[in-house]
Amino acid sequence: MRIELVFIGDELLRGAVVNTNAAYLGQELAALGWKVARQTCIPDQPESIEECLKSALARSDLIVMTGGLGPTLDDRTRDVLAQLFETELALNEEVFGALQARYGHMELSLRNQATIPRTAKALPNSTGTAPGLILEKEGKVVIALPGIPLEMKALFKESVLPFLKERYREEAQFSSENITLICVSESALDPILRKISERYPAVEFGIYPSFEVLTITLTSRQKQWFAKVKEEIQAAFPFNHFSSPSGKIEEAILQLMIAQKKKLVIAESCTGGRVAARLTSVAGASHYLLGSLVTYSNEFKEKLLGVSAKTLKEKSDVSEAVALEMVQGIFHTTQADVGLAVTGLAGPTGGSDKTPVGTLYIAAAERGKDPLVQHYFFPGSREKIQLLATNYALGLLFRILRKL
Amino acid sequence: MRIELVFIGDELLRGAVVNTNAAYLGQELAALGWKVARQTCIPDQPESIEECLKSALARSDLIVMTGGLGPTLDDRTRDVLAQLFETELALNEEVFGALQARYGHMELSLRNQATIPRTAKALPNSTGTAPGLILEKEGKVVIALPGIPLEMKALFKESVLPFLKERYREEAQFSSENITLICVSESALDPILRKISERYPAVEFGIYPSFEVLTITLTSRQKQWFAKVKEEIQAAFPFNHFSSPSGKIEEAILQLMIAQKKKLVIAESCTGGRVAARLTSVAGASHYLLGSLVTYSNEFKEKLLGVSAKTLKEKSDVSEAVALEMVQGIFHTTQADVGLAVTGLAGPTGGSDKTPVGTLYIAAAERGKDPLVQHYFFPGSREKIQLLATNYALGLLFRILRKL
Repeated sequence: MRIELVFIGDELLRGAVVNTNAAYLGQELAALGWKVARQTCIPDQPESIEECLKSALARSDLIVMTGGLGPTLDDRTRDVLAQLFETELALNEEVFGALQARYGHMELSLRNQATIPRTAKALPNSTGTAPGLILEKEGKVVIALPGIPLEMKALFKESVLPFLKERYREEAQFSSENITLICVSESALDPILRKISERYPAVEFGIYPSFEVLTITLTSRQKQWFAKVKEEIQAAFPFNHFSSPSGKIEEAILQLMIAQKKKLVIAESCTGGRVAARLTSVAGASHYLLGSLVTYSNEFKEKLLGVSAKTLKEKSDVSEAVALEMVQGIFHTTQADVGLAVTGLAGPTGGSDKTPVGTLYIAAAERGKDPLVQHYFFPGSREKIQLLATNYALGLLFRILRKL
Repeated sequence: MRIELVFIGDELLRGAVVNTNAAYLGQELAALGWKVARQTCIPDQPESIEECLKSALARSDLIVMTGGLGPTLDDRTRDVLAQLFETELALNEEVFGALQARYGHMELSLRNQATIPRTAKALPNSTGTAPGLILEKEGKVVIALPGIPLEMKALFKESVLPFLKERYREEAQFSSENITLICVSESALDPILRKISERYPAVEFGIYPSFEVLTITLTSRQKQWFAKVKEEIQAAFPFNHFSSPSGKIEEAILQLMIAQKKKLVIAESCTGGRVAARLTSVAGASHYLLGSLVTYSNEFKEKLLGVSAKTLKEKSDVSEAVALEMVQGIFHTTQADVGLAVTGLAGPTGGSDKTPVGTLYIAAAERGKDPLVQHYFFPGSREKIQLLATNYALGLLFRILRKL
């Protein structure tokens, strides 16, 4: 089966919007074991849409397209689809009724949105007004979705995925599973995963890196292998693997903190609030996070955490000694059960031979126990250093909570 | 002149990487006054590349492509380009010499990287090993660039832009200028900009929204209009327009704080460290930012800022009274010259009729002056509320500093 993606939208062509739909659909289809053969992005003009869809249909079996389904006159996709599939536009009473029930009877544009190619299967849009469309002719399928990522993703999960699994039963015999790692670089993972993958030829391995987390996706017709593969990866990275419903480390930490009924306080210097920001991105953080002391100045490190002026002067603010005094300060000045402290040099200026830009010290502890301190050096831009410092701080916190 | 973009890379098709190059090139070309007619993304296979480039060259005058220029065997773009432009691959001594000077004489792959189509103009790559290539035949031009965004952008700025301005002198008579606004939504801007744009038919208006800032790009052959347009937009949004070299509000704030020789302390609740994180994303923040008290719990609000238990109980932690006590607390407990406090409800749970999810109070002041307090309501996801709260806090701080 050959698959193409088509994206309609002037805003994508002039770069006002980054096309995240392309990556989302690519990942979702890869999880079914399918490859995308081509992505095409074109303007919202009937001639472009018609020409592009015609050649895509000549080459491929399945076209998933997004955009051009708005209620205004310049969205012409429905017209073109009706022509290509030799049918005409007609008001779909079911879609119209559902839209009226949700948005009231006054909206004239609802009638436009409910006017779709007569032979199209309409997919209900739970977050917007444009229904998704499935058209089929001579074994070729076109699925048209709205371009707004939130609406597109909801429609894909709710309607498109079940349709694809049913319509392409033969080709959809794949299962997939994700394994998430924190504080592992792609280059450290690559040789190890290569060796593991040689032992499991029936499993396809995909690596999806981001600054936050490395996600390994296993895809296979034989999902019985997944447990063994997972075991091997976890054995290779005992401090790094975690699991949470969303694949976020913040959520894994939330679950551990709540289960252990502990309160956390953070002291951040070079990360400037990013550790707290990451933890509070997940709802429920207020159950365990008392707060974060963003002691960006030495004045604040002394005043709020009791770090000694002597240590700051003799060892410099980016040192193991200061990271340790910061975490001890958390326990002296707050009711925290767990403390996490970060100090480092994000640059680009201020580095020295002893403390180059990219130097990082992280300390974490449970109250009454010896702190664990880690020293890292991350060369790169200020943004990259701050992101990695935040990640490695979360990784150390996770390790303390897991008692590893 | 008709322009197409071609992207080569399996990682883009399977969604492991979001195609930010597409948006970057679209914006850069739009700033020259040019439109992209089509983007195509294909796998790194010679047949796909050949077929795609052939049809793009038949339709268009200029093709800018990225990817497929790596030193390994599976990067086949150079082969295909040599064939299409009826030349052969040959070692370019100049490129080879420059690579050897930078990376040493041992690297075998350097010879591969310096082997390019004989008639191609090589563009030096200051951050990587693959040179950019410009090929030309019968008035049609192909520009091939490496796929890594950092390398691609440097090559584009340093070599491609000057080439385009020279090669397409006729079509490149455009100038462009950016205007940046904070705390303005696209829907608030749209009707006002529409009216202004009617008075300046010679100017093209582009809006590039992001959660952080709204950027308006003016493009015209007649740049004498820009000053007047700018004046009108600034008059319509007196509290919102700012300027900084990078277009970031953080940088505008940094410049004002340093010029006024003031120290800032922040107190954050619902933003969980995001305000400090944004300010510290710009190098030099240590010149003015003493720190941020991320008082996520009421316990911390009382202990660190002296917010009264009575106010917290009677008015709730998301209230004007608490925002005011937070900013007063900053002045009582620290040496800040300027204080900024944020409290709100990011949800998704915990809302009530009186204080629905999305409620936000921001207070800011200079020491000794009456605080300015703002109340907002932003419906939406937790992520969106936290982002907007951060933005509006930065917007209020900017306003205090500008004495507006």
